Amino acid sequence: MNPKLPYVLLVGAAVIIFILSCMLLSRGRQSPSCESQPSVVEKTGSMSQSLVFADLTPEEMSQVVRYLQGKLGVPLVEASRAKPSDNCIASVDLQVPAKAEVLRFLDAGGARPAREALAVLYFGNQADPNITEYVVGPLPTPVYHRDVTVQKYGGKVPYHRRPVTGKEYMDINTLIQRELKKAPRFLAACCESDGTNLVILTTAPRGFKSGDRMTWFVLFHNVAGTGYYLSPVGLEVLVDHGDLQVSRWQLHKVFYNGQYFASTGDLEQGFVAGVLEVVRLKQPQADAVLGSMRPRRPPESPGPLQFEPQGPRYSIRDNRITFQGWSIAFGMNPNTGPRLFDIRYRGERIVYELSLQEALALYGSNCPGGMSTRYLDGSFGIGRFAYELVQGLDCPYTATYVDRHYLAETDTPKTNQNSLCIFEHDSALPLRRHFSDSQSFYYGGLRKNTLVIRTISTLINYDYIWDFMFHGSGAVEVRVHATGYISSSFFHGQGTDYGNRVGPHTLGTMHLHHIHYKVDLDVDGQLNSLETQDMEYEFVKDPWSTQNTIERPYLRRARLEKEDEAAFPLNAPMPRYLSFVGPNPNKWGHPRSYRVQIISFAGKHLPTNSSMEPSISWGRYQLAVTRRKEEEPSSTSIYNQNDPWTPTVAFADFINNETITGQDLVAWITVGFLHVPHAEDVPNTVTVGNGVGFFLRPYNYFNEDPSVDSSDSVYFSSEQDTGACGTNPLACLSSAAACAPHLPPFHFGGFLNLSLAPPLGRL
Amino acid sequence: MNPKLPYVLLVGAAVIIFILSCMLLSRGRQSPSCESQPSVVEKTGSMSQSLVFADLTPEEMSQVVRYLQGKLGVPLVEASRAKPSDNCIASVDLQVPAKAEVLRFLDAGGARPAREALAVLYFGNQADPNITEYVVGPLPTPVYHRDVTVQKYGGKVPYHRRPVTGKEYMDINTLIQRELKKAPRFLAACCESDGTNLVILTTAPRGFKSGDRMTWFVLFHNVAGTGYYLSPVGLEVLVDHGDLQVSRWQLHKVFYNGQYFASTGDLEQGFVAGVLEVVRLKQPQADAVLGSMRPRRPPESPGPLQFEPQGPRYSIRDNRITFQGWSIAFGMNPNTGPRLFDIRYRGERIVYELSLQEALALYGSNCPGGMSTRYLDGSFGIGRFAYELVQGLDCPYTATYVDRHYLAETDTPKTNQNSLCIFEHDSALPLRRHFSDSQSFYYGGLRKNTLVIRTISTLINYDYIWDFMFHGSGAVEVRVHATGYISSSFFHGQGTDYGNRVGPHTLGTMHLHHIHYKVDLDVDGQLNSLETQDMEYEFVKDPWSTQNTIERPYLRRARLEKEDEAAFPLNAPMPRYLSFVGPNPNKWGHPRSYRVQIISFAGKHLPTNSSMEPSISWGRYQLAVTRRKEEEPSSTSIYNQNDPWTPTVAFADFINNETITGQDLVAWITVGFLHVPHAEDVPNTVTVGNGVGFFLRPYNYFNEDPSVDSSDSVYFSSEQDTGACGTNPLACLSSAAACAPHLPPFHFGGFLNLSLAPPLGRL
Repeated sequence: MNPKLPYVLLVGAAVIIFILSCMLLSRGRQSPSCESQPSVVEKTGSMSQSLVFADLTPEEMSQVVRYLQGKLGVPLVEASRAKPSDNCIASVDLQVPAKAEVLRFLDAGGARPAREALAVLYFGNQADPNITEYVVGPLPTPVYHRDVTVQKYGGKVPYHRRPVTGKEYMDINTLIQRELKKAPRFLAACCESDGTNLVILTTAPRGFKSGDRMTWFVLFHNVAGTGYYLSPVGLEVLVDHGDLQVSRWQLHKVFYNGQYFASTGDLEQGFVAGVLEVVRLKQPQADAVLGSMRPRRPPESPGPLQFEPQGPRYSIRDNRITFQGWSIAFGMNPNTGPRLFDIRYRGERIVYELSLQEALALYGSNCPGGMSTRYLDGSFGIGRFAYELVQGLDCPYTATYVDRHYLAETDTPKTNQNSLCIFEHDSALPLRRHFSDSQSFYYGGLRKNTLVIRTISTLINYDYIWDFMFHGSGAVEVRVHATGYISSSFFHGQGTDYGNRVGPHTLGTMHLHHIHYKVDLDVDGQLNSLETQDMEYEFVKDPWSTQNTIERPYLRRARLEKEDEAAFPLNAPMPRYLSFVGPNPNKWGHPRSYRVQIISFAGKHLPTNSSMEPSISWGRYQLAVTRRKEEEPSSTSIYNQNDPWTPTVAFADFINNETITGQDLVAWITVGFLHVPHAEDVPNTVTVGNGVGFFLRPYNYFNEDPSVDSSDSVYFSSEQDTGACGTNPLACLSSAAACAPHLPPFHFGGFLNLSLAPPLGRL
Repeated sequence: MNPKLPYVLLVGAAVIIFILSCMLLSRGRQSPSCESQPSVVEKTGSMSQSLVFADLTPEEMSQVVRYLQGKLGVPLVEASRAKPSDNCIASVDLQVPAKAEVLRFLDAGGARPAREALAVLYFGNQADPNITEYVVGPLPTPVYHRDVTVQKYGGKVPYHRRPVTGKEYMDINTLIQRELKKAPRFLAACCESDGTNLVILTTAPRGFKSGDRMTWFVLFHNVAGTGYYLSPVGLEVLVDHGDLQVSRWQLHKVFYNGQYFASTGDLEQGFVAGVLEVVRLKQPQADAVLGSMRPRRPPESPGPLQFEPQGPRYSIRDNRITFQGWSIAFGMNPNTGPRLFDIRYRGERIVYELSLQEALALYGSNCPGGMSTRYLDGSFGIGRFAYELVQGLDCPYTATYVDRHYLAETDTPKTNQNSLCIFEHDSALPLRRHFSDSQSFYYGGLRKNTLVIRTISTLINYDYIWDFMFHGSGAVEVRVHATGYISSSFFHGQGTDYGNRVGPHTLGTMHLHHIHYKVDLDVDGQLNSLETQDMEYEFVKDPWSTQNTIERPYLRRARLEKEDEAAFPLNAPMPRYLSFVGPNPNKWGHPRSYRVQIISFAGKHLPTNSSMEPSISWGRYQLAVTRRKEEEPSSTSIYNQNDPWTPTVAFADFINNETITGQDLVAWITVGFLHVPHAEDVPNTVTVGNGVGFFLRPYNYFNEDPSVDSSDSVYFSSEQDTGACGTNPLACLSSAAACAPHLPPFHFGGFLNLSLAPPLGRL
C-alpha cells in the first residue's frame, strides 16, 4: 500500500466534505425563482406629478409650525397644553391646490402649483376669540401666510365652534372627578367606586343653540384591556365648559338611572335619604367582563393564507399606486380621512377626487347622553385616528403597509405607522367566465383580483374599515364596514324602545351610521352631464300576430338638466341607472359614461325641521350631483359638530338648481345603515351585513370590457390540452406555487405610537 | 506524527461524508409539518343521518329506470330518441321525504324515512297524452310506484306543458335547415351562408295561450370557440312544433331586419324582387369575432394565491359539510339547482331548507325573438347544467370539488364531475376588530374566514354563480352573480329603445334577472313568528331642559299576524329589520331570532294583468312569508315555462292570509337586477356590481357574538410581546407558511363529459 494513499484519500475526503458542506449551506436559500421580489415601494427619483396631491411630510409640517411661531406675532401655546384662553396651532395639513391649476400642470404642461399648507389656529387669547385658517406657503420654506377664513366661510369663525381638544377633555375630567367626590356613599353603593375606576365618554353636540358648549358625559366602569363602552353605571353628568376660564366651568345636571339632579351633592343626598333607586353593580373583573375579546380557546391550525408566488404585482411610488392599468394618488386628510386623487385607468382620468367627507352616528336612548348623541366623526378626526393596521388580520399578511403623518393638537408631527395598506386580493370569484356546452366546447374566464386600498379609523368605541377597490373591468368600488364596540346606555325603564338589552344593565342603543363621500368624476374630460335610464313596460300589439298583445320592457333615457333634479332623497326610489357621461360617443355611438351604483341600507334622515339638520343636510340625499366649485370643497366642516345650529358648511346650499349639462360635476353620495344593536354586537359589531358603499362602473365608456386585455385571461377549448402550462396558465400554478411563501416576522408598533401622545378625541 | 492519524482522520471523514450525504438526501423531502393533510372528503362509515336529503346515486337512478321499464306496462322510448308521440322517462330525482317524517327521524329517534325517487314521465303515446309524476320506492330496490300528479297539481298535467327536449330541438333544427334551403340567394347575400353555418337559439314562452307550442328561433352566425350569441344575422323564424307528429310541424313566420314574411320562400322572393333591405354580413373570423375570450397578451406573473398551510379546516362526509360549528347537508335539484338542508350552527337547526327555486330572464327588444323571451331557467335545468368547475378560476385552486349526478332526458345517469366546490375563503377583511387607544391599549379581532359552497350553472349563453356562505358570526349569506354572454338582437330601427348597441349589428337587449329562493327557517324550533323593527323620530321635550325639544329616534316593533301583511311588493319599502323569531327569549329577554336582510337591485315586475304573470307571481314580492306546507314545496314548476297562461304552480296562491304567528314558516325571497347590456358586457358580463342576495343574521339568537369562541381569535395588549407566537397567533404565521403549498396538477374533464351526450337545453 502506498503510504501516501491515506493522505490522498484524506485530501479527497476533504474535497468531498467541502462540496457537501457547500451544497448543504445553500439549502436554506430558495432557488432563484423562489427569491422574493424587490420591494414594491419604489423610492422617488425625479419628482413625480402626483406629488401635487401628496400629504405633507413631517418636515413640511415642522417648517409650517416654525414659520407660524415666528411670523404670527402672537403668543402661541402648544395645543396639548393650551387652555381655552390661549392661542394654539390646532392642525396643519396639505392645502390641496385648485383643480384648474392642477390640471394645467398635469395635462397642459403648466407650472407645478405652489405647495401650500392649511394651518388652523385657535385664537383664544384675543379680544375677539376666533378660529383662523391660514394658507401657508410655499413649501418647503414658507414665506407667506394668507388668512382664508372669511373667503372660505363668508365670515369669521366664532371660537365656540372649535372641536374639543384633548387638553379640554382632561380638564373636564378633572372637574367631573372633583364633583364625584361629593357623592362618596352613592358611588360606593352603585359602583363599588370612589370615582377613580370610572371613565367618561363624551357626547355631542353640546347644547341647543349656537354658543352652547355644554356636554353630557356618560360614566362607565373602566376595565383595563376591554371596551368600557358596554359597562355604563347609570350615571351621566352635564358639564358646561363654554367659558374660556376653566375655573368657571361647572357641572349643570346629574342623571342617574332615570332621575335628574342638580348636582352630585343632591345625588348623594337623595341616596342618603333613600329616595334613590340604586342598582348596585360590582366592579367588573377583567376575564368575566361583558365584551372581552380575550380568546377562550387556544389557537388551532391557521386558516387559508394568501401569498404572491412571484411577489406583488402592484407598485407604489411616493403617493401613487399603479396596478394593471390603474393609477391612483392617495392621501389622508386628518379630519375627513382617506382621499384619492387623479384616478386613471389606462391613462385616462376617471375621477379627479374621491374622498370621504363625514360619518354621522345619530342615537336614540332614554338616557340623556345617548339621546343627545349625534357624532360628526370628521370633527373628531377620521384620518388621524386611523392607527397601525395589524398584518394578517386587518389586511392580508403580505399587504404593503405605509405610514401617515399628522399634525394635530401638537406642535410636533405624529406618525401613524403602517396605517394604510395596499394589496391585491383574490376574491375567489370569477370576474367573468363562460363555459360553452353549445355548438363548440370551450371555457374562458378571468379571476376577480382586486387592488384594495384600506385604512381603518378607530373613533373611540367603533372602527370604520374604509376600502377603495379597483377592478379589472375598469370599475371602482368603495365600501365601508363598521365594527368595534357599540355605544350603550344604562338599561332602565322603557329602554327597549331605543334598542336591545345586550347585558345585565346595558342597552345597545339604536343609531344610524350615515357616511358621506365626494366623487368628482371626470369622465372623458372635465365636462360631463348626467343621464338616467330606467325601465317601463309598454303594451303593444304583437307585430306578427296583432290580435295578441305583450307587455314589453323598454328603456326610458333622460338627461337631468338641473341640480334640483339630480338631488335624490335618501329613501326615495332612484332611476335604476344613473351615469356621468362625457362629450364623446364610444365606437357604438353611445356616450362614454360611468355609472354610479349605490348599496346602502340607510336609516331615516333627521327631520329637516330639526334645528341642527342643516349641519348634516348632506344626509337628505342618497345622491346629489352639483356643479363642482373650488369654493365647495367639502360637504361639511369640523366646526359643524360644536355649532350645528349655525353650520359653518351647509351642504344643502350647494344645490341651487344650476345647470348640470356639460359641466364639471361632483357626485355626493350618502350610504349607511340603521344599526339596532343586539346580543351579537357583543363584544364587537361584525362586518357581515354591515357593509355599504357604491360602485363606479364603466357604461359604454369602452368599446368592450377592458379585461379582455388582461394577461391573466384564461381560455381553452376541447381541442386543447387543458393540463399543459403553455395552453392554460392555471396549469402552471402548481409549479408556480412550489416555493414557500416568504412572510416576514410579525411586527406591530401601534401601541408605541400611542404612548407618545396623550389620549385624544372623545377621551 | 502518529502513523495511524491519517486512518483515524479518514474514518472521521467517512463518518462526516455519510452524515452530510444523509442530510443532503433528506433535502428533497418536506419536514413532517409540511406534509399534506388527509383528504377532507371522508368516506361514509355508518349511514349518516343527513343521507335522508342526499341526491340519488347513479345506481339508485338506474334502479328506478329499470323498475319503471319493467313495471309501467307501457312502451318506453329512450328520451334522447323519443318522438313527441312516444312515451319516455323525462327525469328521475330524489323525492325529498316529508318534513314531519324527517324531523321525527332526525330529532325524535323515529324511523329513517323510506328513500324514494320522483320519476317524471312524458306519455305521448297514450290516448290522452300527459305528463305523469311517480313516486318510486323504496330504494335501493323499488317495489312500488305511486302516481302523485293529481295530488301535487290538482289534476292531470297536460302534455303540452312539458319542457322541450334535446330531441325536439334537433327535429326543429332539421325543419329550420330545410326551410332555409328555400332562401339560398338571400342567405348568401345576408350572411355568406348556405344555412349550415347558422345556429338557432330558442326563446320561450311559446305562444299566447295554453296549448300553444310555437317558438321564435333566432339565427346567429356560428363561430367555433366563441359565443355566437353576439352575432345575430337579423333572421328569426317562428316554428309551430305543437303537433305530436313531427311531420306536421311548420314554419309560421319569418322575420328579417324589421320585416315579417309568411315563409322563407317569401323572404327569398322579397330579396330577389329587391324589396328587402339586406344587411350584408361577413362570416365572422374566429380571431376577430365580437366576444372572443382568447387572451390577447401572454400570461405574466400569477396573482395572489390562497393556500391552507395545514390543510382544509372543513370536512365533508357524504352530503354533509362541517366547519367551525356549522353543519350543512347539500344537494342539487336537476331543475331548480342547489338545495341545502338542515343547516345547523352549534348543533341547533336554523334552516331546514334553503333552495333556489327559479331564475327569470325577461327581455325587451324590437325583434320578435327578443321581445318574446321570458326564460324560466328552472324549466331548462339550473341543476343539470351546472358543469365542471375550473380549479383556480371558478373556485380557489385548493377547493374541494365534488361530483353531481343526474338522470334527465336519458335512461343512463350522467355525471357532472367536480361541479360543486367547497372552500374556506380568506375574505381579507376582519369579521370584527377593535383597536383601543383609550384608557388601556389593546387590540382584538378575528379574520372573516368564510365557508363557501358554490356551483355555476351555464344556461346556454349566461352563467349564474350560486354561492352559499357561512360566517363565524352565525350568519348565512346567499349570493348570486351573473356572468357569461348576454343575449342579443339584431340591431335595427329603434333598437336603442331596448338596450345599447354593443357591436356593428348587435343590440344588447335589456332584461331582468329575477331569482327566487325558498328559505324554510326553523329558528329555535319549528314554530316561528315574524317580527319587524324600524325607526321613527319622536319629538320630545328634553327631560333635563324642558324648554328645548329634540327629535329622537325610537324603535317601532311589530308582529305580523297574517300572510298578507308579510308579502312585501318588489320595489316598495320594507321594514328595515325583519326577523324570524322563536318561542324563547335569549339571556337578555329578547326573542331569539334570525334577521333576513336583502341586497337586490330588482327591476319592475311584469304587470299583473299580463296573461302569463301568474306563472311568475313569486316575482311580485321581494319577500313573502307563508305557512310552510308539504303541498307547497316549490314556488314554481318546470311546466310553467311552456304553459305560463295556466300555471301549474302559481305562487301567489300560497298567500291566502293565514295566520303566521307561532307557525312553521317559509321566507320566499326575490332578488335580481335590471341589466341593460352595454359595451363592457362584451365578451362577458362581469360579476362586479352584478351580485345580489341576502343574509340570514342572528338577532338576539345568541347571548353574545358566537365568534368569541373561535380559536382564530386574536387579542393582545400593550403589555404583551405582540411578536411572540405564544401570545399572538398572527406571529406564528411566518413559520406556519414555511412550507410550499402543495397544489396537485391541474385537471379539467368538463368537455369529456359533454361529448357523452347530445347538446341539450335551448340547443
